[in-house]
Amino acid sequence: MEQINCDVAGVYLAIHDLGVAPVVLLKTRDERYIPIFIGLFEAVSIHSALNGPPPPRPLTHDLFSDTLTALRAGLREVRIDSIDDGVYYATLFLDTQTGDLSIDSRPSDGIALAVRKNAPVYIDSGLMAESAVTRDQLPELREFTEYQV
Amino acid sequence: MEQINCDVAGVYLAIHDLGVAPVVLLKTRDERYIPIFIGLFEAVSIHSALNGPPPPRPLTHDLFSDTLTALRAGLREVRIDSIDDGVYYATLFLDTQTGDLSIDSRPSDGIALAVRKNAPVYIDSGLMAESAVTRDQLPELREFTEYQV
Repeated sequence: MEQINCDVAGVYLAIHDLGVAPVVLLKTRDERYIPIFIGLFEAVSIHSALNGPPPPRPLTHDLFSDTLTALRAGLREVRIDSIDDGVYYATLFLDTQTGDLSIDSRPSDGIALAVRKNAPVYIDSGLMAESAVTRDQLPELREFTEYQV
Repeated sequence: MEQINCDVAGVYLAIHDLGVAPVVLLKTRDERYIPIFIGLFEAVSIHSALNGPPPPRPLTHDLFSDTLTALRAGLREVRIDSIDDGVYYATLFLDTQTGDLSIDSRPSDGIALAVRKNAPVYIDSGLMAESAVTRDQLPELREFTEYQV
């Protein structure tokens, strides 16, 4: 299945009828977008890595990233594979001393690691066709820094 | 420096003049206690691993634990090393295919991994002498399940 490379365009708050919720926004080179709802903690973590400054003590994904480095495991890529009942699924692909590994992950954890490791994020082309929207079709987004955490 | 083995007695909400805050409670065999303030996310994660049921999708520490397993890295122990200006410091000790590793960590992340890996948690005896309290000296604690997350 073809994979489409995405930039991690940022973490935002999406405004909905039901309230506000954190999203991570993925963006392709041809300006299609995938907004994925994520947990508040994962939003803080991705936002921290994208915008700094470094936290005084390592956040969980910082420790995770440090541990991969110490174990000489590289994050080759993160793939957003599928969606089921509104929940996105992802896979981490690791290069290790003893071969390649793939590990089931939430997209938020994969993206939080990818932005720390400068690893590429891919979306399955079928999923892209199903889920991608244009800029005009995005929900209203606010800066995440407005959120008090 | 001597290390003292502790059980992870649970995650609670400590009641203070300033409000409530999550703590993880460590307990020695001779019934001394160390309550450590932790973040809400880490509290949810430790509580989830101690009390189940397994979450439908892996939490960050579940993914972290799965990744250590996939990389054949064992968590030998977690040490709570020191406290500085009210902030506790910890170290993860990993057994790996290529030798031992130690990695700087917040206590909360170390404990969240230790409870998933059944790894022992140790506290430096000097830190224990400085920080441990008896049951009567603990702050008022409430069940963490009362917390709405």
